[in-house]
Amino acid sequence: MDSSEDVLLHRPWIPVRIGGCQLLAKSWFGEASYRVLLTDTRCAWEETMDAAAVQSRAQQLNRRLRASVAAFFSHLCEVAQPCLSGGDGEAEGGAKVSVTRLEADGLVVRLKSELAGLPFHWEFHCSPAPVSLVCAQLVRPLLAMSRLLQRQAEQLGGLLVRKDAEIQDYKENGATLSRERLQTDVFQEETYRQNYLAKALPLLWSESSNDLGFNANLQQLYATVVNHRNTQKRKLSEEDCSAAEEPDLTSSPPASGSLETEPTKKGVQTQEKSSKEKTTDRPPIQQESNTADRQSSKPKKKKVGLFR
Amino acid sequence: MDSSEDVLLHRPWIPVRIGGCQLLAKSWFGEASYRVLLTDTRCAWEETMDAAAVQSRAQQLNRRLRASVAAFFSHLCEVAQPCLSGGDGEAEGGAKVSVTRLEADGLVVRLKSELAGLPFHWEFHCSPAPVSLVCAQLVRPLLAMSRLLQRQAEQLGGLLVRKDAEIQDYKENGATLSRERLQTDVFQEETYRQNYLAKALPLLWSESSNDLGFNANLQQLYATVVNHRNTQKRKLSEEDCSAAEEPDLTSSPPASGSLETEPTKKGVQTQEKSSKEKTTDRPPIQQESNTADRQSSKPKKKKVGLFR
Repeated sequence: MDSSEDVLLHRPWIPVRIGGCQLLAKSWFGEASYRVLLTDTRCAWEETMDAAAVQSRAQQLNRRLRASVAAFFSHLCEVAQPCLSGGDGEAEGGAKVSVTRLEADGLVVRLKSELAGLPFHWEFHCSPAPVSLVCAQLVRPLLAMSRLLQRQAEQLGGLLVRKDAEIQDYKENGATLSRERLQTDVFQEETYRQNYLAKALPLLWSESSNDLGFNANLQQLYATVVNHRNTQKRKLSEEDCSAAEEPDLTSSPPASGSLETEPTKKGVQTQEKSSKEKTTDRPPIQQESNTADRQSSKPKKKKVGLFR
Repeated sequence: MDSSEDVLLHRPWIPVRIGGCQLLAKSWFGEASYRVLLTDTRCAWEETMDAAAVQSRAQQLNRRLRASVAAFFSHLCEVAQPCLSGGDGEAEGGAKVSVTRLEADGLVVRLKSELAGLPFHWEFHCSPAPVSLVCAQLVRPLLAMSRLLQRQAEQLGGLLVRKDAEIQDYKENGATLSRERLQTDVFQEETYRQNYLAKALPLLWSESSNDLGFNANLQQLYATVVNHRNTQKRKLSEEDCSAAEEPDLTSSPPASGSLETEPTKKGVQTQEKSSKEKTTDRPPIQQESNTADRQSSKPKKKKVGLFR
């Protein structure tokens, strides 16, 4: 898949724990197709399935079930999406999830749940993703994030120096503090940075990492960076009336106007709005439209009219 | 090559311009062997050559030359190292450098210079690097760098808040500024961050990038991060008396003591010291030990006793 067309480019990476494996995941579920990306920051795997492929595998894995692709896929989404969106690997309704690494570097994620009283099986067969994908989805965004953060640190240091100048002026004019504990040291950039690294570097090692280091702040910044890139691309497309190449974070763009940046909020809710603009996307929480919902002793059991 | 053994792991990425291509490069030249890594942040290429391979290719490309591997390699280093260490692609002594992308995703870097009055040819035949290498050399370090920088920004924000509290105390006690222009606004983290991103994101696009975004500050931070990782590994090796796995920036380490961090200086000079500890490394500026240095009208021509 051409990386500039990849529906997952503007999605955030979400830390997930699947079958005991700590991974970062991106996923997109369409009408009856999906695309999944996984990484443990050592390898990366992907799978793209269209409706025909989904149907074929569904029938292979669930010979007793007779259901429309839509019904089957609907259940798959219910089970898989929570799993790939930060759940704890259990998925909805007590589904079991397991991960198997294959000899040939592939990855299989097996889901087992229940649908209409019958076992429901699905398998994501993910193959190794190419370097170009890892570069587009990880390297270049991380490089941009690092640049943004590093420049931000510089600016904040500059602000600190200015506040020190203000404080100095107060002091020179005889001002004193009523509360001594409020006194701060003069900020020295180099000293600060060395002390900071000396404390922070060992912490890189000792922190628990249920997010592979991709904490909530970084997830948010990633989303901001890739969304900005996506906005640029749409703008270029509109101007040129042709498919623009993926704008290059690493080279001069053909034309740049002033852009509005969406206000960023905590978490990744803003992602949903952007994704809806771009693709016909299935919302993560599936609204069940089928009304044939009989009483059952088991909670959260949905019947979707599987038997023709 | 096992990524944990990769001699290039603790080297910094250096922006280079070779044959018109903007690349990031890592290289290591041994006694008569070398390892080279190149990336344009879309693809990555690598080559490792031992003494036998170097000799074989040297003879293939330069049939008229009869020289020891040592003499030949010495000249190769003189020509290639400046090129791969941030030069402008011209290399020492007016060598010509060109880059060719191959159909099968490989990359060939051709050097043409002169040695003892004869044309001297070398070719780096770089093949596509695997995802595991891109992850070890780029993704994980960049993730660690982002984390460090993001936390640093948080801390600096906290310092600004404390200075505002100090300033507030002065003001409440009637202090006034003698120079109005020294007054700063109260720091509001969220407002600051949104304004910062709104200005900085478009700049990601419009900057010239002769370094693929890997500016000097990021190069230095990269070096700090990977050197720290390397220090951890040696420490673990000493403790276990066995080859330790590459310490994982993304998981809890077996044991962590307090570490001294080398004071970081601007640029990458500190890298050279670390690299000498680890491998028998050829210094970038080749000291010519052969004294058969005849007069010549061309500057910088070194004769190394090529004809047996």
